[in-house]
Amino acid sequence: MIAQYPPMGWNSWDCYGAAVTEETVRLNADYMAKHLKEYGWEYVVVDIQWYQPTASTHAYEPFSDLKMDAYGRLLPAENRFPSAAGGRGFQPLADYVHSLGLKFGIHIMRGLPRMAAHRRLPIWNSAARCDQAANPSSVCAWNPDMYGTKADLPAAQAYYDSIFRLYADWGVDYVKCDDIAREYPHCQREIELISEACRNCGRDMVLSLSPGPAPLEQAEHLKRYASLWRITDDFWDDWRLLKAMFERAEKWCVHAGPGHWPDADMLPVGALRQCYGKPDWTHFTQAEQRTMMTLWCMMRSPLMIGGDLPKNDAFTLNLLTNGPLLAIEKESWCAHPVCTSETACCWIAPRKDGTGCYAAVFNLSDEAQTVAFPDDALEAGCKNAVELWRGTASSGSLTAALPPHDAAVWQITY
Amino acid sequence: MIAQYPPMGWNSWDCYGAAVTEETVRLNADYMAKHLKEYGWEYVVVDIQWYQPTASTHAYEPFSDLKMDAYGRLLPAENRFPSAAGGRGFQPLADYVHSLGLKFGIHIMRGLPRMAAHRRLPIWNSAARCDQAANPSSVCAWNPDMYGTKADLPAAQAYYDSIFRLYADWGVDYVKCDDIAREYPHCQREIELISEACRNCGRDMVLSLSPGPAPLEQAEHLKRYASLWRITDDFWDDWRLLKAMFERAEKWCVHAGPGHWPDADMLPVGALRQCYGKPDWTHFTQAEQRTMMTLWCMMRSPLMIGGDLPKNDAFTLNLLTNGPLLAIEKESWCAHPVCTSETACCWIAPRKDGTGCYAAVFNLSDEAQTVAFPDDALEAGCKNAVELWRGTASSGSLTAALPPHDAAVWQITY
Amino acid sequence: MIAQYPPMGWNSWDCYGAAVTEETVRLNADYMAKHLKEYGWEYVVVDIQWYQPTASTHAYEPFSDLKMDAYGRLLPAENRFPSAAGGRGFQPLADYVHSLGLKFGIHIMRGLPRMAAHRRLPIWNSAARCDQAANPSSVCAWNPDMYGTKADLPAAQAYYDSIFRLYADWGVDYVKCDDIAREYPHCQREIELISEACRNCGRDMVLSLSPGPAPLEQAEHLKRYASLWRITDDFWDDWRLLKAMFERAEKWCVHAGPGHWPDADMLPVGALRQCYGKPDWTHFTQAEQRTMMTLWCMMRSPLMIGGDLPKNDAFTLNLLTNGPLLAIEKESWCAHPVCTSETACCWIAPRKDGTGCYAAVFNLSDEAQTVAFPDDALEAGCKNAVELWRGTASSGSLTAALPPHDAAVWQITY
Amino acid sequence: MIAQYPPMGWNSWDCYGAAVTEETVRLNADYMAKHLKEYGWEYVVVDIQWYQPTASTHAYEPFSDLKMDAYGRLLPAENRFPSAAGGRGFQPLADYVHSLGLKFGIHIMRGLPRMAAHRRLPIWNSAARCDQAANPSSVCAWNPDMYGTKADLPAAQAYYDSIFRLYADWGVDYVKCDDIAREYPHCQREIELISEACRNCGRDMVLSLSPGPAPLEQAEHLKRYASLWRITDDFWDDWRLLKAMFERAEKWCVHAGPGHWPDADMLPVGALRQCYGKPDWTHFTQAEQRTMMTLWCMMRSPLMIGGDLPKNDAFTLNLLTNGPLLAIEKESWCAHPVCTSETACCWIAPRKDGTGCYAAVFNLSDEAQTVAFPDDALEAGCKNAVELWRGTASSGSLTAALPPHDAAVWQITY
Repeated sequence: MIAQYPPMGWNSWDCYGAAVTEETVRLNADYMAKHLKEYGWEYVVVDIQWYQPTASTHAYEPFSDLKMDAYGRLLPAENRFPSAAGGRGFQPLADYVHSLGLKFGIHIMRGLPRMAAHRRLPIWNSAARCDQAANPSSVCAWNPDMYGTKADLPAAQAYYDSIFRLYADWGVDYVKCDDIAREYPHCQREIELISEACRNCGRDMVLSLSPGPAPLEQAEHLKRYASLWRITDDFWDDWRLLKAMFERAEKWCVHAGPGHWPDADMLPVGALRQCYGKPDWTHFTQAEQRTMMTLWCMMRSPLMIGGDLPKNDAFTLNLLTNGPLLAIEKESWCAHPVCTSETACCWIAPRKDGTGCYAAVFNLSDEAQTVAFPDDALEAGCKNAVELWRGTASSGSLTAALPPHDAAVWQITY
Repeated sequence: MIAQYPPMGWNSWDCYGAAVTEETVRLNADYMAKHLKEYGWEYVVVDIQWYQPTASTHAYEPFSDLKMDAYGRLLPAENRFPSAAGGRGFQPLADYVHSLGLKFGIHIMRGLPRMAAHRRLPIWNSAARCDQAANPSSVCAWNPDMYGTKADLPAAQAYYDSIFRLYADWGVDYVKCDDIAREYPHCQREIELISEACRNCGRDMVLSLSPGPAPLEQAEHLKRYASLWRITDDFWDDWRLLKAMFERAEKWCVHAGPGHWPDADMLPVGALRQCYGKPDWTHFTQAEQRTMMTLWCMMRSPLMIGGDLPKNDAFTLNLLTNGPLLAIEKESWCAHPVCTSETACCWIAPRKDGTGCYAAVFNLSDEAQTVAFPDDALEAGCKNAVELWRGTASSGSLTAALPPHDAAVWQITY
Repeated sequence: MIAQYPPMGWNSWDCYGAAVTEETVRLNADYMAKHLKEYGWEYVVVDIQWYQPTASTHAYEPFSDLKMDAYGRLLPAENRFPSAAGGRGFQPLADYVHSLGLKFGIHIMRGLPRMAAHRRLPIWNSAARCDQAANPSSVCAWNPDMYGTKADLPAAQAYYDSIFRLYADWGVDYVKCDDIAREYPHCQREIELISEACRNCGRDMVLSLSPGPAPLEQAEHLKRYASLWRITDDFWDDWRLLKAMFERAEKWCVHAGPGHWPDADMLPVGALRQCYGKPDWTHFTQAEQRTMMTLWCMMRSPLMIGGDLPKNDAFTLNLLTNGPLLAIEKESWCAHPVCTSETACCWIAPRKDGTGCYAAVFNLSDEAQTVAFPDDALEAGCKNAVELWRGTASSGSLTAALPPHDAAVWQITY
Repeated sequence: MIAQYPPMGWNSWDCYGAAVTEETVRLNADYMAKHLKEYGWEYVVVDIQWYQPTASTHAYEPFSDLKMDAYGRLLPAENRFPSAAGGRGFQPLADYVHSLGLKFGIHIMRGLPRMAAHRRLPIWNSAARCDQAANPSSVCAWNPDMYGTKADLPAAQAYYDSIFRLYADWGVDYVKCDDIAREYPHCQREIELISEACRNCGRDMVLSLSPGPAPLEQAEHLKRYASLWRITDDFWDDWRLLKAMFERAEKWCVHAGPGHWPDADMLPVGALRQCYGKPDWTHFTQAEQRTMMTLWCMMRSPLMIGGDLPKNDAFTLNLLTNGPLLAIEKESWCAHPVCTSETACCWIAPRKDGTGCYAAVFNLSDEAQTVAFPDDALEAGCKNAVELWRGTASSGSLTAALPPHDAAVWQITY
């Protein structure tokens, strides 16, 4: 099945914004193959604006001249992705990523290019034109490139079929579709069209929906039509955003399962915002990064690294290669919070194989404190426990003296 | 001052939709000059899509090829307005209307043409370009032609200045700006820009804002920046819409005054929907038309005839040339409802000159009934009264036996 | 008719709270007869808790032993109203007020005394008992004495009939019913019962409903069933409350007319809060008091003085005896605001007799400023104008240099 | 700990409403001891109005004469509970229930008797009086007996301490407090007072809060201060209510755990509404009863039987003595729904001991259908499975052909 476990990989947005280039992608793929692949990391995803020749930061340029084919399908800007020359699209880059034993992904916006509609371009393999598929009053609130589709018309399905068929030809394994997940109800039908195109394109592809927050009351629709979907607005290296994720995680945790994963968004660790000519680094403390990784694993969120991988320091590499912690994503199920306050939170997660469970505690306060997991909540007892960040063994009660914003997580074996 | 009294005239929308032509305008202007002018009717207004060569009904065609100049300013489609040939725009037609002793108006949409932005056209008399003034995420929900502006940029003011200067050159007396009056708060600043351009263009122009409902809590902003503004969504010949107007009128009546008029929308009387190849006529009963005219006059709403004037029958012409009734618009002030129920409503309006007042009663029920104006509410007594639709004289109490949906209105003289 | 003009009088609440006594009422009535009666002031109203022996401030004492008859009808506490001894109720005090040429009013709470229900007392002239009329889940949010009624039962009407008949016997001219005007929708039926009892009691009585804000959407119901009703929560001598009244006045002004008056609440002028053993005086500046009196007159609000009248100083007495200003209440109609901003407001009001109109300007800012009435809004011109606070004559434009929070009002004669 | 597992028992409401008697309680306790105790059923709970001599149905009688002691503490009506004579309260009945190896519970309303406040009775073991603890504006919307307390005053805590001390003396093991669980935020503090009184009374008591729906956002407050709390309004034998419980269960399931149990309300099975002189029986089909029991067990809701136990038929007794099903309440944890639609729902619940898990499917449609548990969601596989209602064994996929509204639940062993 597609996305049996929460996908793990790297995405270009946090470090290169709209300005990612082929060289950057290749360097990050090389690093992943060498240092991360054995821990389960596998997707290499090119984020937004790869079709815009002039993109240089995280900003969007209105009315720019996007690279597209005669059917209104966007193509990589060749000045940024040289291997795309000659109409080859992302195929050469996907081939390279595959050659490393990894998988290749791209970002798309809902809809079709505005200029494809104004120019009345034909839709590939269809009698309809782009202007017939386009909805002139459906535009993104933050990106100027596209029109949404008239999702009730066959022309809309035809356009989406045409692009996913192209992506299948290129060898794409993962599509992150943007401007859609929080846009219920008016994008509900469009989600279905995209899902349909993805399933029928002839190649297995993970379908990820952004941005968040997706509405909780649409959980069953999302589980049916997408592999993962964002549960918050863009997540960055700010403690307030991390603290706020606990409330989201509580509401969404019951909806995580094989093939459908609530997504807490990218991991802003290591070298971020590298497209501004000056070095920048995550503003998260090491404690906060442990808290983030622990919560994401306990709730089984997808994991997408945001930092420029070749610039990782030893701490960051260690953070991302804690095998027993990462195993929670694949070995646990049915996780949920046990108790939550303004200053602390505890989570429990059974192991699927019946050999034990995981128990996590989080210090949400700005002060150091000792946080105890409630004895009563360990309903099956706690004879053997190992803390997965520090290696300490415990028996009986589980307590951790934690710096501000830090976490501990134990693997309990029966 | 501009719009000292509520403007009165004709507008092409109800009879010709987006498909109005120069010939139609000339015929209606001729009729107005001959039959209506002496009763105060004066504006001849060309409604939406005059710049689109292919418009043929009330519908809008997305991604059509709009006629515009090198500065992104829309021009009349020459196949529909032949006198506009040679870059003369509406000047010949305006000259003609002026020659009849009437005034000339046009409809515009908020913003600038999408293609002017995508083509990056320069703005007349400015160093900025249309793409710099355009806001790519501000689009109309129902019309596909324009982008709203980035109203905080000087380029936006420059664009609006450029079009109003052109309209001044043409001889325009009245501008109905659409997609703006109910779009608070995000269009508040744009209203100010348009008002500024209108006042500085070198020619007196009435500024009318559509569509409604404009928000009541913005009354003071509207009074400051516009001559009139719509208080409901599009009004058509349907009793439910007419009945609903009473609630709107009650809330807005205190805001009517010289230079600023809450607008109950066009009068759908006579020959409507003439662009579909078959005759159509107002669905209002004669009683309903009296009720409409009475309420519009009592609340001092602007009066814009919607029917194709040359096709008027005798009833319609009489309806529109009841001089004593129309005088309420200019001679009364401080009108307000006295009492309202599901089945009846009464209004009072003093005369400004102190010689008396007007009292109206409306039968809002679907049954015939006698409606009495409350004696107590005639605080200055009622010695001499004449009913303005039927000519009957009264003294003392005012009552009228009314068919369903009909109205009576008395002029009381002290 | 009842309340042909907005009622004017004095009420004990602002100066004596729940602790008013017979002596206080007599002294205020004496003052009114001597100094105010000739200017139209006529009602003397005893406010809340006259049936509670222990009341001593503005506070309410729960579970106190209220004075009532064998039918659960509250009676004046004899320790506070000695003339009520021997079961005579308010009759002796009403007789005294009438002997001065004035009218007498009392305050009541919606419903019946809780103890009358728990004791299962019979209802006068009815086969039902108080516990059958009482609704045990309808209690006032701020006063502990009463249960509301089960308004759909005949027993509820019987109880209200029984008390209004008693009040008629006493000679009551004015009833202020509390805990009811803002309690729509669940008190709608109870208002109808009370109105019915009032009209059938055998004596003309003004019916006033409190507290506010009454809901604007119930205007027609209020106009039908009450003589006046509060449009705000309790009004005190605080500029913020006075400034906020302008927004309320704008919304309610169209509903003022003979027999039905939106009520801006009492006038907190002169000696207030006299039940705390220390002198207190209105916190309003003289300017603010002029603004209050001007707005209340222009909107034709009822006028109920809150201060202890015998302690009035010369300014306060002058404020309350400005005959030309008070005449606005009786001589004008159809008033409404002309323009309003954060810093200024203007109102217009025609005279009913056609001899002219009134124009008022208010300085709502905290700085002195010159406020001009808009020339355009004087649609009938302004040849002869006299300012009613200062006596200055004007012609043409109307402007006033005003201290912070002050007002000017002109009488314009054609 | 108190309520380590979800409490199981019987409550008098569904069968006897406000009219329960000592004889009924004893007969039901006898039945429980003989037929149900071995399956984990243990609580016998006397529901509302045991202090009212005249109660005879599910209705409440306003202003009735409640039995209470000199301290305003309600006592059993001796005509209904003869063993309470001589001031012995519920102690003899509790002793009897304990003699059967069962536990005894009672229902109380938030607050104190209105008459205790009006009579100004003293509070036991306190210098304060009931009228000082009572809040005269805090009354229940549906029951006429009590006033809520002024929860910020020590007198309020003193009153609650006085009643829980009395209940401890009687031997009460379970208190169901009503008019409180959905009354956030204004009852939040009162919940804390009651919880404090319960913990300090000298005897272990389960504290149950009603009615629902308790607000989800108060989950942590409820977990801290109560043993169980209602998540819906009163639940009766109506399929629409049962179907609606699935949405509630999804939101609340993560908050179930030792000591704190979201409560889906009583089980309306068997002989219901027995106080109306004619036999009545649950309107649920047998299929619906299986669905109810399955969902309640999977979500670990408390189980309180509503029917008159001695009248149970064989089906009902079997329903309530399915040992393997009831074991889910004690042996599972971390349950949650896997997928939900208009027509079907699936739940998963791991066993705490690691030996397997439970998987349930529900047919929510009005048609028979085969419902399949998703293979992917059985992340640990499914080699050995037994269906707990029918005893059928499975391996691999889990599917059930189900009549309308029926359920199946498998125990899977690794």
